[in-house]
Amino acid sequence: MRISELSRCSGVPVATIKYYLREGLMSPGRPTAATQADYDQAHLRRLRLVRALVEVGGLSLASVRAILTAVEDTTLGLHEILGQAHYALADDIGSAADDPDWPAARADVDALLDELGWHVNIRAPARDQLARALMALRRLDASPTRDELRPYASAAHTLAAHELTLLATSAQSDAPTSDVVHQAVIGTVLYEPVLLALRRLAQEHESARRLHPPDQARH
Amino acid sequence: MRISELSRCSGVPVATIKYYLREGLMSPGRPTAATQADYDQAHLRRLRLVRALVEVGGLSLASVRAILTAVEDTTLGLHEILGQAHYALADDIGSAADDPDWPAARADVDALLDELGWHVNIRAPARDQLARALMALRRLDASPTRDELRPYASAAHTLAAHELTLLATSAQSDAPTSDVVHQAVIGTVLYEPVLLALRRLAQEHESARRLHPPDQARH
Repeated sequence: MRISELSRCSGVPVATIKYYLREGLMSPGRPTAATQADYDQAHLRRLRLVRALVEVGGLSLASVRAILTAVEDTTLGLHEILGQAHYALADDIGSAADDPDWPAARADVDALLDELGWHVNIRAPARDQLARALMALRRLDASPTRDELRPYASAAHTLAAHELTLLATSAQSDAPTSDVVHQAVIGTVLYEPVLLALRRLAQEHESARRLHPPDQARH
Repeated sequence: MRISELSRCSGVPVATIKYYLREGLMSPGRPTAATQADYDQAHLRRLRLVRALVEVGGLSLASVRAILTAVEDTTLGLHEILGQAHYALADDIGSAADDPDWPAARADVDALLDELGWHVNIRAPARDQLARALMALRRLDASPTRDELRPYASAAHTLAAHELTLLATSAQSDAPTSDVVHQAVIGTVLYEPVLLALRRLAQEHESARRLHPPDQARH
C-alpha cells in the first residue's frame, strides 16, 4: 500500500509517518518510484505499536526506540527483553539521586523488597521509580508504613504472577517469538493505563457506595 | 520564613516558587517589606503538594489548579472532591471521540462496568481513559476479552475498597476535613506511580523466577 493508505488504515497522519521513518522507528517502504514506496502489513503493525506506545503509554520517542531495539534483538531471551522494556520506560522518569532524601527512600525500597522476598536487580529502574514516589509522600507527611504498602504489593504481585504465567505459556507454545515479545511489551506498557483507569472507576464506585448519598457524606 | 528558606525546605527553586505564586497555585506570603514576604508551614505544605502532583503525578499545572480548587471548596463533600480530582487527572489524557473506533471501545467499557456491577457516572473520564487503552489494544490485535480484563478489575476493586475504607474511617474521625481531603487527593494521584512501580518490580521478580536462568528461557 502507499503511504496515504497506510495513514488511513492506522489513523496516523502522513506527516507523522514520515517523521517516524526519518527517526528510524519504522523501516522504509519498498521503493516503487522516485517519490513513492510500498508498505505492507508489517509496517502497519509497527506503526500501530509506535503510536500506541507514544499515545497510550505516554512514552517519549527515545524510549520507544529503546524498546523497539530490544524487541528486534534476536539474541535476547524473553526475560532480558522485558528488562529492556522496563529500562526504556524508566528513561521518562528522571533521576532524583542528588536529593538529600534520596538515600533513605532507596533504602526503604530495598528493605521492602527484601521483606517481600522479591528478587529484583539492585539497579532495576523500578526501584528508583518507587523511591521517588515514596520520597514525595514522605515530604507530604504521608509516608506509608510497610503495612500500608502491603495491599499494593499484593495486588501487583497477583497481576504479575498471572501475566507471567500467560507469557510463559505462550513462550512454550508454537507461537513465533516475535509474537510473544510483542505480547510482552504490550502487556508491560499498555496495561498500565488499563489498570489505572480501572482503579479510578473502582474508586468512584466505592466512593459512591460509601460516601454518598450526600446526607451520609461528611459535612 | 523568607522565600529563600521556603526554597531550601522544599527543594523547589525560588524561580519556580515565584512562578507558582504568579500562577495562583499558592497564596502570597505576608508582606514584610517592599520586596519581601513571610511564608509559613501552610505555604510549605501547599508547595510540596503542588510539586508532588507535578513531578510524581505527572500532572499539568492546569490539572493541579483544578484539583486545588476542588480541595479548597468547602461546600463539596468528599465524594465530590474525589470526583473533581478524577476529572482534573483526565484533562491530561485528551479525547479520541472523533476516532471511528471510539464508539465501539466506549460501548465495551460500558458493558464491562455493567457486568462488574460498578456504579460509575456515565460521563466519568476514567471510562474514556479505559476506552482509549482498549482501542489501542484492539488496533494491535491484542483486544482483551472480558475474562482477560477480570484480574485487573479485581485487583483494582480490592485496592479501591481498601482505600475507601481508610478514607471513610478518617472522615468519621476527629481529623480536620482538610486533612482528609489531602489524604484523598494524595491517595488518588500519588499512589498511581507506587502501584505501577510495584507491578514492574513484581513482573521482574516473576520473570526471573519463571523465564530464567537462560537455559530454561525460550531459545
